[in-house]
Amino acid sequence: MQSAQTTAILLNFLREEIKKTGLTRAVIGLSGGIDSAVVCALCAGALGPEKVYTICLPYRASNPESEAHARLCAETFGVHYQVIDITPQIDAYFDSVDKDAPALRRGNKMARERMTILYDHSAKLGGLVIGTSNKTELLLGYGTQHGDMASALNPIGDIYKTQIFELAGYLKVPEPIIKKAPSADLWQGQSDEAELGYTYAQIDELLAELIDQRVSERALKEKFAPVFVDRIIKLVKKSQFKRRLPLIAKLSARTIDREFRYPRDWGV
Amino acid sequence: MQSAQTTAILLNFLREEIKKTGLTRAVIGLSGGIDSAVVCALCAGALGPEKVYTICLPYRASNPESEAHARLCAETFGVHYQVIDITPQIDAYFDSVDKDAPALRRGNKMARERMTILYDHSAKLGGLVIGTSNKTELLLGYGTQHGDMASALNPIGDIYKTQIFELAGYLKVPEPIIKKAPSADLWQGQSDEAELGYTYAQIDELLAELIDQRVSERALKEKFAPVFVDRIIKLVKKSQFKRRLPLIAKLSARTIDREFRYPRDWGV
Repeated sequence: MQSAQTTAILLNFLREEIKKTGLTRAVIGLSGGIDSAVVCALCAGALGPEKVYTICLPYRASNPESEAHARLCAETFGVHYQVIDITPQIDAYFDSVDKDAPALRRGNKMARERMTILYDHSAKLGGLVIGTSNKTELLLGYGTQHGDMASALNPIGDIYKTQIFELAGYLKVPEPIIKKAPSADLWQGQSDEAELGYTYAQIDELLAELIDQRVSERALKEKFAPVFVDRIIKLVKKSQFKRRLPLIAKLSARTIDREFRYPRDWGV
Repeated sequence: MQSAQTTAILLNFLREEIKKTGLTRAVIGLSGGIDSAVVCALCAGALGPEKVYTICLPYRASNPESEAHARLCAETFGVHYQVIDITPQIDAYFDSVDKDAPALRRGNKMARERMTILYDHSAKLGGLVIGTSNKTELLLGYGTQHGDMASALNPIGDIYKTQIFELAGYLKVPEPIIKKAPSADLWQGQSDEAELGYTYAQIDELLAELIDQRVSERALKEKFAPVFVDRIIKLVKKSQFKRRLPLIAKLSARTIDREFRYPRDWGV
């Protein structure tokens, strides 16, 4: 899809869906990365920059470049910007409960602490938390449930990472943000592609065939390395729980998320 | 439904759904209230008490009776129990960001902090966070999204509050927990029924007709006070967003939570 057409659809999505809630402001966690920068650009375009509140939420071990890029993004699009250090809360928890917790647990706790702060600010400001998870991350489960995966509305959840780069260029996201290697920055030197073991270009090509075009596993294995296909299918299946609501034991004729499943804006 | 039959269904649900994930332990936040006590009893029955890890997560302003009741519950069912004070994290945040934040924002931040700790412990222990939101709370939206409403599995999400009392008696939940007035204990003296403006008996009778039996609004208003019917319908509709995933802008043929929507255990 052309970036111009995608942008038009997403600006309309943001305007309409926010309007339905009766709220007028967007709250976005800016990581300094390309996904949240694209969401920031879209929200500024949809609502006007004065309605967009961005927050950068570094931990003491976060790369200082991340905050610099978050600030650059906010300045570029003219939106509200503040920095809230999450170190005191994170350290208070791990110092008292588990000093030796591994990096993954620490990273998930940080992602969830950021969520709680974004939601608190959405309540304070009368705004909505706008999601920044792209389709690649969502399908691989490469994110924290009730952390960065949590939001009210997500304009980029149907866009693969490689498409995000194209859209970012169209939206005039600053070059340094587009050019750096994607990283969740949950620990020093983290690189998405090194961690995943494949490039986003490889992964997205496979996901587009697997998910969108429903190509069979057998056919995929004629085109891609079978070990790669197995690995990606396993990641998608293993992370399905992150893309669903809590499973409720069924006892009645109408159970939440089963028979009782209206859209979010039902009854508006 | 008879409590014996309900219990049999729920024990089976917990055993089967936990087994599918490959994990063996349950992690439960014990508030000292009846809902988490019922969930604790069910998990102990389904998995054996040695597989059940309960955590009480008080804030400095929490009623000390809540912790005493949480402990009583854990002792009664013979499950693991610990207390983690969330005061340092909560105060670190509000002291630095907003000293005058109102009680509702503080309560939501606490509920979310508790979620992050339960999820961290589920990762540490190789367990699943078991939900404790009942059907009444879920339908009214009387809970915190990504807080107490977050879980992997919820055995009581299809059971109204008034039915919980019956089930608690059958499961031999200690009397003081059954007898006290339901409270979220997010601030001192909070009472669910005072806050909602109606008793759970009144609300559940209406919800059972409205939701399970699909009785029309017009017919309901002949039986119940129209202002009461309006209020409950409004609460259910206004809180629908809490019972749904983030809304993703649709751009492709297969969008997450739309065409791409398998069960949580898909591919197990």
